[in-house]
Amino acid sequence: MLSKNQIKLINKLKLKKHRVESNLFVAEGIKTIKELLQSDLKLQHVYATEPFNLESTKETLISETDLKRVSFLTTPNQALAVFEIPKSKPIDLSQLCVALDDVRDPGNLGTIIRLCDWFGIHNLICNKGTVDCFNPKVVQATMGSITRVNINYLDLESFLKEIDVPIYGAFMEGENVYTHKNLSETGVLVMGNEANGVSKTIEALITEKIAIPRFGELKETESLNVATATSILLSEFKRRSIEM
Amino acid sequence: MLSKNQIKLINKLKLKKHRVESNLFVAEGIKTIKELLQSDLKLQHVYATEPFNLESTKETLISETDLKRVSFLTTPNQALAVFEIPKSKPIDLSQLCVALDDVRDPGNLGTIIRLCDWFGIHNLICNKGTVDCFNPKVVQATMGSITRVNINYLDLESFLKEIDVPIYGAFMEGENVYTHKNLSETGVLVMGNEANGVSKTIEALITEKIAIPRFGELKETESLNVATATSILLSEFKRRSIEM
Repeated sequence: MLSKNQIKLINKLKLKKHRVESNLFVAEGIKTIKELLQSDLKLQHVYATEPFNLESTKETLISETDLKRVSFLTTPNQALAVFEIPKSKPIDLSQLCVALDDVRDPGNLGTIIRLCDWFGIHNLICNKGTVDCFNPKVVQATMGSITRVNINYLDLESFLKEIDVPIYGAFMEGENVYTHKNLSETGVLVMGNEANGVSKTIEALITEKIAIPRFGELKETESLNVATATSILLSEFKRRSIEM
Repeated sequence: MLSKNQIKLINKLKLKKHRVESNLFVAEGIKTIKELLQSDLKLQHVYATEPFNLESTKETLISETDLKRVSFLTTPNQALAVFEIPKSKPIDLSQLCVALDDVRDPGNLGTIIRLCDWFGIHNLICNKGTVDCFNPKVVQATMGSITRVNINYLDLESFLKEIDVPIYGAFMEGENVYTHKNLSETGVLVMGNEANGVSKTIEALITEKIAIPRFGELKETESLNVATATSILLSEFKRRSIEM
């Protein structure tokens, strides 16, 4: 059985304000929750239709109907868990990092976190306008990768001003990434907002403008989605590291 | 003003059955509609809150409230148009083609169509279980690219059995795509279903299994989203064509 207070708490965690206040976030689905349980994350409570066999104070068996009442998904998947939001670790600039300049779509951020995990990028830096990575839709889209990528929210302009590594950014007029001679194994790759790309203040700090060449007959103004552009650029950076 | 019949027709076009019966589909948003008007597509009618200045039998000015009543979007964007579904052209096997084995998510199909357009892939082949490319969510996600990619729905197994070009497919145990010696400029790249990957019957017809290497500490069972995997593979095929 779910108490009224439990329902209220879970519902509140849809909003960033309440996640920050309580330092808690929601993850859903058996597979994701099992993966999160294997990480360093601290479980607050799991609500499930089948037992997880955790200590009894951490687990409540609930009906499908109750799960539907609290789930953020159209099709709830057997379990919903509340975890503590972990502390970010310091950013390690000895490896390639990805920075997001106000990416707003939860699906895009989730996909990018998953890509970072795939390509062994351990540090993701988000400008303060970027959607919260503990938004339930983001957590869902990362499929567990969120536990393996260190995510810091900060003022990107101040951060970039103080570092001394190459700062890459994707721009239409940039140098062809496929033939670029100097894709470093350290540096920060900045990806921009869905509608406006990289902002002017951040653009001024980019040291290497790179471009994914267009092979089709698209118009000048068209661009790739930020998550697919990130996948292509990370693939290209990492391919080089194999060949070196 | 919108008539009851017009509202009924537009609503019906949400369903594939009715799109097939009427040979019509819906596109929304000023930018997408303008792009579609510049293509070979035949407009049936546009409903907009601002005039498009087309011939009067093709255009109806409607209120925002009316647009909200018929729009498939949460935030309608000034116009909704009904176009005729174009006839597919024959598949040109002298160029690299992409084939989808039952991709189900409209957002993924839309992104893949956009990627095909970006990378100059003119032919997209869809197994019959793949989501309909004239589904409103797919049309929306393609952002106009749907007019520049020739899409054929067919029985993929029979099709692949009859062709004589390399058939590539992404598999965990495939050859590293970055160091693969033989990425041809012709051939068919098969991408699989979101949950199950490439089906067994299609897998048996793949002549070149390729893999995107994992650099992170992901588990064996994890994989990339089908749209991001497609972006990385197309990038790699096309990069080679620059260097050749």
